[in-house]
Amino acid sequence: MARILILNGPNLDKVGTREPAIYGNVTLETGMGTVRAAFPDNRIDAEQLALEGELVTAIHRAEGMYDGIVLNAGGYSHTSVAIRDAIAAVRVPVIEVHLSNLLAREPFRHTSLIGGVCAGCIMGFGFDGYRLAIDHLLQRG
Amino acid sequence: MARILILNGPNLDKVGTREPAIYGNVTLETGMGTVRAAFPDNRIDAEQLALEGELVTAIHRAEGMYDGIVLNAGGYSHTSVAIRDAIAAVRVPVIEVHLSNLLAREPFRHTSLIGGVCAGCIMGFGFDGYRLAIDHLLQRG
Amino acid sequence: MARILILNGPNLDKVGTREPAIYGNVTLETGMGTVRAAFPDNRIDAEQLALEGELVTAIHRAEGMYDGIVLNAGGYSHTSVAIRDAIAAVRVPVIEVHLSNLLAREPFRHTSLIGGVCAGCIMGFGFDGYRLAIDHLLQRG
Amino acid sequence: MARILILNGPNLDKVGTREPAIYGNVTLETGMGTVRAAFPDNRIDAEQLALEGELVTAIHRAEGMYDGIVLNAGGYSHTSVAIRDAIAAVRVPVIEVHLSNLLAREPFRHTSLIGGVCAGCIMGFGFDGYRLAIDHLLQRG
Amino acid sequence: MARILILNGPNLDKVGTREPAIYGNVTLETGMGTVRAAFPDNRIDAEQLALEGELVTAIHRAEGMYDGIVLNAGGYSHTSVAIRDAIAAVRVPVIEVHLSNLLAREPFRHTSLIGGVCAGCIMGFGFDGYRLAIDHLLQRG
Amino acid sequence: MARILILNGPNLDKVGTREPAIYGNVTLETGMGTVRAAFPDNRIDAEQLALEGELVTAIHRAEGMYDGIVLNAGGYSHTSVAIRDAIAAVRVPVIEVHLSNLLAREPFRHTSLIGGVCAGCIMGFGFDGYRLAIDHLLQRG
Amino acid sequence: MARILILNGPNLDKVGTREPAIYGNVTLETGMGTVRAAFPDNRIDAEQLALEGELVTAIHRAEGMYDGIVLNAGGYSHTSVAIRDAIAAVRVPVIEVHLSNLLAREPFRHTSLIGGVCAGCIMGFGFDGYRLAIDHLLQRG
Amino acid sequence: MARILILNGPNLDKVGTREPAIYGNVTLETGMGTVRAAFPDNRIDAEQLALEGELVTAIHRAEGMYDGIVLNAGGYSHTSVAIRDAIAAVRVPVIEVHLSNLLAREPFRHTSLIGGVCAGCIMGFGFDGYRLAIDHLLQRG
Amino acid sequence: MARILILNGPNLDKVGTREPAIYGNVTLETGMGTVRAAFPDNRIDAEQLALEGELVTAIHRAEGMYDGIVLNAGGYSHTSVAIRDAIAAVRVPVIEVHLSNLLAREPFRHTSLIGGVCAGCIMGFGFDGYRLAIDHLLQRG
Amino acid sequence: MARILILNGPNLDKVGTREPAIYGNVTLETGMGTVRAAFPDNRIDAEQLALEGELVTAIHRAEGMYDGIVLNAGGYSHTSVAIRDAIAAVRVPVIEVHLSNLLAREPFRHTSLIGGVCAGCIMGFGFDGYRLAIDHLLQRG
Amino acid sequence: MARILILNGPNLDKVGTREPAIYGNVTLETGMGTVRAAFPDNRIDAEQLALEGELVTAIHRAEGMYDGIVLNAGGYSHTSVAIRDAIAAVRVPVIEVHLSNLLAREPFRHTSLIGGVCAGCIMGFGFDGYRLAIDHLLQRG
Amino acid sequence: MARILILNGPNLDKVGTREPAIYGNVTLETGMGTVRAAFPDNRIDAEQLALEGELVTAIHRAEGMYDGIVLNAGGYSHTSVAIRDAIAAVRVPVIEVHLSNLLAREPFRHTSLIGGVCAGCIMGFGFDGYRLAIDHLLQRG
Repeated sequence: MARILILNGPNLDKVGTREPAIYGNVTLETGMGTVRAAFPDNRIDAEQLALEGELVTAIHRAEGMYDGIVLNAGGYSHTSVAIRDAIAAVRVPVIEVHLSNLLAREPFRHTSLIGGVCAGCIMGFGFDGYRLAIDHLLQRG
Repeated sequence: MARILILNGPNLDKVGTREPAIYGNVTLETGMGTVRAAFPDNRIDAEQLALEGELVTAIHRAEGMYDGIVLNAGGYSHTSVAIRDAIAAVRVPVIEVHLSNLLAREPFRHTSLIGGVCAGCIMGFGFDGYRLAIDHLLQRG
Repeated sequence: MARILILNGPNLDKVGTREPAIYGNVTLETGMGTVRAAFPDNRIDAEQLALEGELVTAIHRAEGMYDGIVLNAGGYSHTSVAIRDAIAAVRVPVIEVHLSNLLAREPFRHTSLIGGVCAGCIMGFGFDGYRLAIDHLLQRG
Repeated sequence: MARILILNGPNLDKVGTREPAIYGNVTLETGMGTVRAAFPDNRIDAEQLALEGELVTAIHRAEGMYDGIVLNAGGYSHTSVAIRDAIAAVRVPVIEVHLSNLLAREPFRHTSLIGGVCAGCIMGFGFDGYRLAIDHLLQRG
Repeated sequence: MARILILNGPNLDKVGTREPAIYGNVTLETGMGTVRAAFPDNRIDAEQLALEGELVTAIHRAEGMYDGIVLNAGGYSHTSVAIRDAIAAVRVPVIEVHLSNLLAREPFRHTSLIGGVCAGCIMGFGFDGYRLAIDHLLQRG
Repeated sequence: MARILILNGPNLDKVGTREPAIYGNVTLETGMGTVRAAFPDNRIDAEQLALEGELVTAIHRAEGMYDGIVLNAGGYSHTSVAIRDAIAAVRVPVIEVHLSNLLAREPFRHTSLIGGVCAGCIMGFGFDGYRLAIDHLLQRG
Repeated sequence: MARILILNGPNLDKVGTREPAIYGNVTLETGMGTVRAAFPDNRIDAEQLALEGELVTAIHRAEGMYDGIVLNAGGYSHTSVAIRDAIAAVRVPVIEVHLSNLLAREPFRHTSLIGGVCAGCIMGFGFDGYRLAIDHLLQRG
Repeated sequence: MARILILNGPNLDKVGTREPAIYGNVTLETGMGTVRAAFPDNRIDAEQLALEGELVTAIHRAEGMYDGIVLNAGGYSHTSVAIRDAIAAVRVPVIEVHLSNLLAREPFRHTSLIGGVCAGCIMGFGFDGYRLAIDHLLQRG
Repeated sequence: MARILILNGPNLDKVGTREPAIYGNVTLETGMGTVRAAFPDNRIDAEQLALEGELVTAIHRAEGMYDGIVLNAGGYSHTSVAIRDAIAAVRVPVIEVHLSNLLAREPFRHTSLIGGVCAGCIMGFGFDGYRLAIDHLLQRG
Repeated sequence: MARILILNGPNLDKVGTREPAIYGNVTLETGMGTVRAAFPDNRIDAEQLALEGELVTAIHRAEGMYDGIVLNAGGYSHTSVAIRDAIAAVRVPVIEVHLSNLLAREPFRHTSLIGGVCAGCIMGFGFDGYRLAIDHLLQRG
Repeated sequence: MARILILNGPNLDKVGTREPAIYGNVTLETGMGTVRAAFPDNRIDAEQLALEGELVTAIHRAEGMYDGIVLNAGGYSHTSVAIRDAIAAVRVPVIEVHLSNLLAREPFRHTSLIGGVCAGCIMGFGFDGYRLAIDHLLQRG
Repeated sequence: MARILILNGPNLDKVGTREPAIYGNVTLETGMGTVRAAFPDNRIDAEQLALEGELVTAIHRAEGMYDGIVLNAGGYSHTSVAIRDAIAAVRVPVIEVHLSNLLAREPFRHTSLIGGVCAGCIMGFGFDGYRLAIDHLLQRG
């Protein structure tokens, strides 16, 4: 049984009502439920944290407790050296996920400060991207 | 009776003593008092929050509770995609306010990440800018 | 009784029919009328000038004749060093006003050459922004 | 039964021997075999094309013949407006895939000309990324 | 009788169905037919080539065989030094044509690598731009 | 009978003597005469205006009086937000024309502030470009 | 007897009272008088023009009437392609003069659009720079 | 007896295990102990805070309670206007310290938003840099 | 006996007639003949290929068949990530050669995408550069 | 009697033979002789120094010995922070002179590191620029 | 006993009189004396050299003769690849020191060419920074 | 008999011990000896100079004394306008040589200030590059 931590950053608690043309109208709770249901034999924990420093701390804490992290850092993806450093500081593989295809949006969403220290990135597939990320984490075992 | 939320970001609690040549020597408490006194028939709440994620959460919470937000995000105005996303995620109109005229200061204060999703911006008039912002919110009804 | 000069730059005479999704459908004449009506006890003059150099000259002439200028320099806001120098050359306070929220439009409208020498800036509120600017000018006495 | 076209661009025929520290030592043939084996009930075709214009033509031809394209355009991802236009010209969904995490490599690999018109992007997972892309295409059905 | 070569680059074979809001719904075949019909007394040949190097070769071959080239290099206009060098290498005048007004589209379409060595440029008029280009070539004799 | 307004900007009155290697040695008067002679059945008016604001005003005035504008804004093409806004403010189609091929000249002539709101652009053909522009305006009728 | 035209651009009529720390407290009238007095045997005409297009026209008119132009284009120096083109269009030598040392001021004053087509530049010496420019024009005969 | 506050930002609690090739293998606790031991006659307090806003608040609180701050803001050094403003808002001297030599690392670590308002900077010496910073604070007394 | 492959990219077949002021008037055939004649005891093969993807394939094929490649990729040198990746994918040393001194030409020729993965570069010596490159390849044996 | 030091930087000893189309064919010796002859009643010393550090030292030494420096730092003007600091370190006024009009030459000559700390700048007038600089130094006395 | 070489670059011989608001009014001689006095048991040599190449040579010579170098390269810090290469070429640890806090000064002082190859950097503490650097060199022994 | 001058710039005297992974472990003396031995019938002089101005002077002096210069300006290649001007000022052909392939190193080594005025460039071949450069100089006679 693998243990996976899903970390959702700021504003993801508003998905479902927030800019549905971009993010769809599935809520975070429903989305996480669907993802969890796809892996009934594994432990999939999910947290939503609005504060940059709390995400730093959650990444630290995951070391030794989880086999992989699926991280949607939201707006911090483009601006946070602190989260980048947290990912580099732990030995748990981290996969970056985004609901929307950032390359089809504003230019400031085209650069990522955290991507370079993640194992890889999946974006543009809504909550299904989380499922794919976990699928891969289990695959690489 | 309109309900307006004033959100003040990091360091605004130091106004009055902090760099008075730029920010004047009226304290935040006095300034907020003057603003509130100008609208005796409306509910004007004011919070000062130092954490980026707390501002994100406060903007979320305002939906349904307030008719408008007057936001001085301080230094986060130039760096926070998370606060930008929070403003875009709610249906309450948000007006950006700054005590000083940012265009007369350092270059890194000339760019705004949050301005593009606000209804408008008022800057350079000290605490009177808050009064103007509320006046306009009431005007647009 | 305060004397205030409103200066409108190029293309503002077309407001009302011009790109109504951006500028609304109130004409300049109506808009100025509403602003003037809000300050019945003061002298509010308004001019619309299409030429950069005429705006320079009008700003010069205002010295000694007016207690404040409300300036919507239109497209010259982004390109005119000459108007910037004119504002810096006089002792009348100048407030920059824009009908639309420039930060929500094309990138070339995000930079201002004249903002750094104005007292402050109000944008995004249509003609109500002119009223707020005059209100503040009267307030600061 | 879904029909999926995998398009591999220039140099992908050298994977397995080419820079194994970056691309691993599984050959394209083996990799494609593994991907195909994961979807025994669907038609998965794979082509490797070294020429930019041939990729343009292959994308055109896919319309009406395939339900989705998994595209690893290799070096053309960063330089080809022609392939971008080809993707925008067809109604087949295209998913961008890269073997390596481009954000962990040279700066010229951090920009994508084609990403903005794809449905999404998966990178950093070697050939498993192709499997995830097809999995998602089947899921969205 | 003048001999004119029209060269159409990648994706132009999809015009008519491809992004009709931008390119209209006239097909390449129909468009070329209309252009040819406008000059019944001259020889107007048209080729559509998807490969950068084939366009290079076609430009070379035109020397001595044609009196002018009308070139719509599509996406290669922004990225191809090779085509630029081909144009500079021959003594046939080349006129750059684009169906859409590139300046009204994405920023990466605002720069041209090939324009500096062409005789001139016509853009924004759909297939009528080809007719104008030939008209001018005949005019300059 | 169509009514077309040709607007020539600053320094075009010097063409014929001014930098003949770039602009040729046909005077503006002769050039305009040749253009007018090509359309004997239509009304072709031509004005040369040196002032940015006068061009703004002339574009405004053209609405309702003309069926199309051929605009050579000269040096203002690269610097004038005011003329851009004037073009966007009217419903008359505007075609940008330049005597020389700007892409073969100094870098500051490679960017256009007004092109994005014009119907299209023709450059590099001397006065014949004006004829082509009118030809197209009549064609789209 | 040489004939020299001094052209002063926008805001130079305010020198003497305008930002005296930068421009000194000698008025334009006095400054021009001193310059003229230094060359009693030559004809020195001086005009102050606030409009870009009027400066363009004045430079055109100078051809054949003057042996040299001393030009202080003020704020237009940094933004006017039109004035640059006017200088390039005439055969009278033009010397650029500035009262202050632009390199010691704001970055936007460090670039010149007109300098590249002038004979040379003198800056930082107040009105004495005009005298030096005329002195040189007489010297080169 | 001087009172010095050491503030350590995000991820510094992971030093010792985190990227030892860059940060060494001494833990924060041991490092702080060594620093404190070097100044037995003074009060040296040390806090580690992961949240940007908490660092802002801690800097505010230090006023009146400490004679100097030694600040290692970690990743916030490159991105936080809020911490910059906090430093500028207090009258306690702040010395910026970094364990590693940032100039020998990624480009995004070469710019500092907070350095310009600190008294100075020490970097590259591991925990010994903290000792040097305190030594200097005592020296300037 | 060493085996060397010379690869010439697009437009090199036009050398001799193409822009002789830059490239000289020796044809590719003559130039290659002279180079071959300088090494009578070795096998020197030369190909000219106009297509980017064909160059990619030719570089791949050279592995095991040649001891070194002399590559003049022409215009692709500045734009082709695909050729760069091909060079990195093989174990044959590649020397970049250019007929002209690119640093003395247009700015877009000053950057090289392929140079960083070649063994070295020789430019500015016409066809003699090819001879020097082979001479060095033989020398390093 | 005023004492003026003329400092000529690297390569100025080659003027007269060096690139005469740019620098003319008067030698440095003759040029300096003409300048000296124009001021028979003052002491005009001239040195030519090829080394950056020697220019630094010469500027230092001038303090107390000279009433003004005329400095043509040649290529160091664009690259030397050391010479800039030397000028700022002394109380002698320094006037920057260049033989050619740098704005009409390569872009790397358009920026000046030393200009911001000089009293002013004269360029484009050959050796006559030195005479004008001294004339002004005597004038300001 | 450790042997330390202090190298001071151009203009440091003027400290004490040069821009005292920035550099203080302690002379280099006094400053060096104070530093030396702090380490009576070690050999501290100090040289001041104005020439870039002399600093290169001095760094070379230090190898084998000194245990560490404290380098204040002054203006060369921002512009000298040669000094950078010299530091990288020797095995003596080099610590970069600056009297002032460069981040609080002009933008061209915010970049360092030499910092990336030094052991670390200390700036903003006047001559006390030299003492701290030596203290650290002794500490790391 | 040809006379060739080899000029080696700063730090080349350290080659052999300096960063051997980049520069190899052959000393300058040995390297120069090998080069000289390859041309027994010609005069090959070699100088190593650490100072920028000395290189300027040596280039000047070579005129009339040498038939060609082989120049490895080391770190000055990227920063010296003075050496560029020296090369342009003499009629001796200069070939730029570098031991390593600069394009495979740090970005600041990818730009050359001197390359544009040299006859050509050879880099990446260690000391053998000098031999090739001389070989070519003899070849072109």
